[in-house]
Amino acid sequence: MEKMVIGIDIGGTITKYGFVSETGELFCEGTLHTGKHRKVKDFISELCTKLLALQKSNNYNVLGVGVGAPDGNYYTGAIEHAPNLRWKGFIDLAGLFKQSINLPVAVTNDANAAALGELIYGNGKGMKHFIMITLGTGLGSGFVVDGKIVYGHDGFAGELGHTIAVPEGRQCACGKKGCLETYVSAPGIIRTVFELLANEIEPSVFRDISFNKLTAKMITDEALKGDKIALKAFDYTGKMLGMKLSDAVVHTSPEAIFLFGGLALAGDLIFIPTKKYMEENLLTIFKNKVKIMPSALLNKNVAILGAGALIWNELKKNH
Amino acid sequence: MEKMVIGIDIGGTITKYGFVSETGELFCEGTLHTGKHRKVKDFISELCTKLLALQKSNNYNVLGVGVGAPDGNYYTGAIEHAPNLRWKGFIDLAGLFKQSINLPVAVTNDANAAALGELIYGNGKGMKHFIMITLGTGLGSGFVVDGKIVYGHDGFAGELGHTIAVPEGRQCACGKKGCLETYVSAPGIIRTVFELLANEIEPSVFRDISFNKLTAKMITDEALKGDKIALKAFDYTGKMLGMKLSDAVVHTSPEAIFLFGGLALAGDLIFIPTKKYMEENLLTIFKNKVKIMPSALLNKNVAILGAGALIWNELKKNH
Repeated sequence: MEKMVIGIDIGGTITKYGFVSETGELFCEGTLHTGKHRKVKDFISELCTKLLALQKSNNYNVLGVGVGAPDGNYYTGAIEHAPNLRWKGFIDLAGLFKQSINLPVAVTNDANAAALGELIYGNGKGMKHFIMITLGTGLGSGFVVDGKIVYGHDGFAGELGHTIAVPEGRQCACGKKGCLETYVSAPGIIRTVFELLANEIEPSVFRDISFNKLTAKMITDEALKGDKIALKAFDYTGKMLGMKLSDAVVHTSPEAIFLFGGLALAGDLIFIPTKKYMEENLLTIFKNKVKIMPSALLNKNVAILGAGALIWNELKKNH
Repeated sequence: MEKMVIGIDIGGTITKYGFVSETGELFCEGTLHTGKHRKVKDFISELCTKLLALQKSNNYNVLGVGVGAPDGNYYTGAIEHAPNLRWKGFIDLAGLFKQSINLPVAVTNDANAAALGELIYGNGKGMKHFIMITLGTGLGSGFVVDGKIVYGHDGFAGELGHTIAVPEGRQCACGKKGCLETYVSAPGIIRTVFELLANEIEPSVFRDISFNKLTAKMITDEALKGDKIALKAFDYTGKMLGMKLSDAVVHTSPEAIFLFGGLALAGDLIFIPTKKYMEENLLTIFKNKVKIMPSALLNKNVAILGAGALIWNELKKNH
């Protein structure tokens, strides 16, 4: 029987799952609508029924379950007040999974899971200190120090998306103003395009598109064709990210920063300005030392792999 | 023979030394002018001659040497290009000490040494995650994660003084603009008073004092007497520090932040606004969780104690 762990990524809309081997191969991927059940108990029960059936039909020897979830807390094994989920309050995920699958369960947030995936299966292999940045609807981050994820005092370390990029700047969904993720994320670059349309006079295809119709992918596509507003939007996004990464570097002095997610797929459009503005703002002793690189898992399902890496890591600790 | 380590704090002007017991008691304190010798080799030779004489006359069993120094690097045991020292370039401190005193030597920067002092002898005892802030001529910081100092990839982690508080703000001696320490440090609050004298019209005793005559201690004294410019200067200093501490918190999620140094002696004048503005800027999940406290070593020689703690810590690791 092949040794496997289960990796689960609970997203706001879709939950993805799969079986992850010790070397990071992914099998039997599947999905489930996160909002399908009013009660979290019913959701986990359906998910576990599916997983147990897959385990049986493939004759896997499953050793544990790793879960990445918004506001997932490594210490408590719970989701704590995630604004984007249907289930409110404190949800004891680890406890609920154990009721259906009597195996070790580990929980963390999606960005920490991605950082672990990078550490164990990706470009972070062999590195002791790095930062993982996930660029999606928000900006998530995971910090690796001395070869381990930093969870901090209460399990919520690594919320770089909510550092202040612009004092009294854009309104963030978290209630604060000027948070980095209001500038650097898929919605962030859309907001930047609309600010540029207001401030600049250059023609742009975006002058015929509504806010709700515009996507980050369209901005990438038009930037590649030379649209000036799109190019300026990427430069500004890189400026904000680079500036705040120069701050992050002095906290933990990483060897590398990995970018993952939709905006990272824009390649040079985002990497070149980010590197440029980070170097401009770095303290001399850090200049030209810190690599900014794409995640090795850019086209893979990092969330499931990371959740798998999380529980593999726990299982190794206990041996 | 009593077991001791030697703790040395190399400052820009004065070098302080002493013998530190395992429980953190300090004996035979002394000082030496850092700039006395043109060659660093001669300086260390004189220092070691003094220390060996003290060891002999007190019959101490000395187990190692800990050194805190500006830009001291834990990994290399060297001072690397410290702008405030007479000796330039790469100085192999650990190697030089070993030539005179054949014992284990450990080196780090002064803020990391202070953080270790707090961890082992101070209010950080038993804490796994905290930040130490030292407020003097500059703003130094040391990060503790999982009960250990964060040195990072190259040994320079924890340079919070050079995060950007105000983009394109005050000129910093490091060459950058708007660094936190240009606002939050002894010279920083003096600069703030002069900015306030320019912007406000309130009378103040400071309108009769030149820039070079003003000290941070005078600002504390006048604030306690109710001088409005002095009070506004403390509020602004706390605002800058609180704002940037709210950023620092999301990186490593500390249980507490300790303030040490001259400005920390101003008590409520600095602690109240710092706490207020930090809480205003904190992400909800961190609100009312992070303590801001004075260092337990506020009136002690934390630099020597911290250097002693550094080498005691190394000696324990090797057993």
